[in-house]
Amino acid sequence: MIKTVELVDGAARMIDQTRLPTEKVFVDCRTIEEVGHAIKTMIIRGAPAIGVAAAMGVSLGADAISAEDFDGFYSQLEKKCDELAQSRPTAVNLAWGIDRMKRVARAGKDLSLPALKKRLREEAQTICDEDIAANRAMGSFGQTLIADGNNVLTHCNAGALATAGFGTALGVIRAAVNAGKKINVLANETRPFLQGARLTVWELMEDNIPVKLITDSMAGYFMQKKQVDVVVVGADRIAANGDVANKIGTYMVSVLAKTHNIPFYVAAPISTLDLSLASGEEIPIEERSADEVTIINNKRMAPEGAVVAHPAFDVTPNHLVTAIITNKGIALPPFTESLKKLAGESANP
Amino acid sequence: MIKTVELVDGAARMIDQTRLPTEKVFVDCRTIEEVGHAIKTMIIRGAPAIGVAAAMGVSLGADAISAEDFDGFYSQLEKKCDELAQSRPTAVNLAWGIDRMKRVARAGKDLSLPALKKRLREEAQTICDEDIAANRAMGSFGQTLIADGNNVLTHCNAGALATAGFGTALGVIRAAVNAGKKINVLANETRPFLQGARLTVWELMEDNIPVKLITDSMAGYFMQKKQVDVVVVGADRIAANGDVANKIGTYMVSVLAKTHNIPFYVAAPISTLDLSLASGEEIPIEERSADEVTIINNKRMAPEGAVVAHPAFDVTPNHLVTAIITNKGIALPPFTESLKKLAGESANP
Repeated sequence: MIKTVELVDGAARMIDQTRLPTEKVFVDCRTIEEVGHAIKTMIIRGAPAIGVAAAMGVSLGADAISAEDFDGFYSQLEKKCDELAQSRPTAVNLAWGIDRMKRVARAGKDLSLPALKKRLREEAQTICDEDIAANRAMGSFGQTLIADGNNVLTHCNAGALATAGFGTALGVIRAAVNAGKKINVLANETRPFLQGARLTVWELMEDNIPVKLITDSMAGYFMQKKQVDVVVVGADRIAANGDVANKIGTYMVSVLAKTHNIPFYVAAPISTLDLSLASGEEIPIEERSADEVTIINNKRMAPEGAVVAHPAFDVTPNHLVTAIITNKGIALPPFTESLKKLAGESANP
Repeated sequence: MIKTVELVDGAARMIDQTRLPTEKVFVDCRTIEEVGHAIKTMIIRGAPAIGVAAAMGVSLGADAISAEDFDGFYSQLEKKCDELAQSRPTAVNLAWGIDRMKRVARAGKDLSLPALKKRLREEAQTICDEDIAANRAMGSFGQTLIADGNNVLTHCNAGALATAGFGTALGVIRAAVNAGKKINVLANETRPFLQGARLTVWELMEDNIPVKLITDSMAGYFMQKKQVDVVVVGADRIAANGDVANKIGTYMVSVLAKTHNIPFYVAAPISTLDLSLASGEEIPIEERSADEVTIINNKRMAPEGAVVAHPAFDVTPNHLVTAIITNKGIALPPFTESLKKLAGESANP
């Protein structure tokens, strides 16, 4: 499997996800600013992958700093980090990755600058490795919820491409397949960015996991026809009460699942929890450019001057979530207790 | 306003709806076969517009027939009609328009062939005129359900372009605006064919009715935010019990509306009723080409070889429908009684 992101030769190397599946192009980000740009333009996307890329970005940012002492170094680093943190607002993993790197920097304040930079490089690599391990753990827990022969619907791409590898929602599906279960996936295309059509279908086909592509508007149709047994999606941020911010359209899927008595599972690492927020109402929802809705493949589909809305995420309230699959185990309602317990000390903040 | 379809100079002239809004190109169909092709390829679409175009097609088909007597004429006409009836399966208006023309032909069996052909031409024009009148009547009835200041969500295009003029769902909105009400429209883009983005937004902008374009996946988000007061959609076929076949995604909208306690109205002329079908389960659902999902503006979005589903319609069960607005009045549940009463003798069959 192609690596989503890796630290090589002084660069964070990413597969350009805006050009998949027709073109496989890698982008080398050599500065923290270039990493920020890659996150903003969705060359790399997916909450966990953004967290990993951000950590690598902080390491690259640190490498570029010349300073007399730790305080000089750290004040420059903090400034760069603040800017990187602005690249996308909804996924909490961005802040999580940056904060963890800043903590490591502060803990290493007595090291020489070269040693500290090396320490930060190692930490970025650790975060990357831990993400894959977390996804495999999530898969082990989550696959117990998926039965042999199940038709699993997913939205957006919560796969290997949304993480350092293996995936969250698709990691659960992969683990079920690895456990010998026959799984059929229904992939919502996920307008406007088409992460489902472009990324989910591509990575499942690479793994020979049967997948059928549908438009987002067909999810209800296939549930009504009893062709969906379970829904598994990822998350960009989960509040303390279990409200889940995820790609726009996830809320719609959760309502449809509830109406059809279909379990609705969310798969996300502990780093996606934001226990500082009591509920999803506090999660900032990114508004992206109208052009992403109106222009497809360089052709304008809507009339010039059309008024367009583009909230990139929505919030699924906890009462529509059957369970949250994490790398520490499965959280069941009431989530305020179960998430807190699973998170222990490792969650945000 | 541009005419959707009109009978001129021995042709059914249509605006090519596959090329709107960027190009305004007219297509002259000079034979019944060309009309069938235009319906199949969605140069013209929308149940009422298909009914009108079909009637014009039958007239063109009749014009081309050479025969010794009525029986020879009618057997040729019937064959052409059977073929035309195959062009799209879901909208009942197609069969309705054809059957009405055949009835008129049979009623004129004692006319000379030139007089009969003239009679059929006149009937096609009458069907076209009646459609506009029906939409205006529907608008008058329907606008009473829309309050000043309402945010109205619609799916697909049930507008002037889906009819001979004025529109069904958009006709209700137009009538509300004409009655002095301030209305804001939310238009679902309606994947895969994007009738919302391309057609609904265009025709509302032409009429200066405020409209905001959203992806289908955002409908739930805006309902959750209390930015939708009422839903109005069109229909391709309505069964005797009030089950409604309409563009894929309509069912999803109806479930979301129910969940958010938002009225869900269907606007359709009596010609869209098919009282021969007890329920929506009997309505044939068209499966269209996978390419319409995977290829946008000549660029493939999903990987080569991806498995794709493309049901072009879905069925909204009657319990999710608040009321059905027709040109004869508003039908309320239970629909089996109310529709039968409104339809009187004019419905299918």
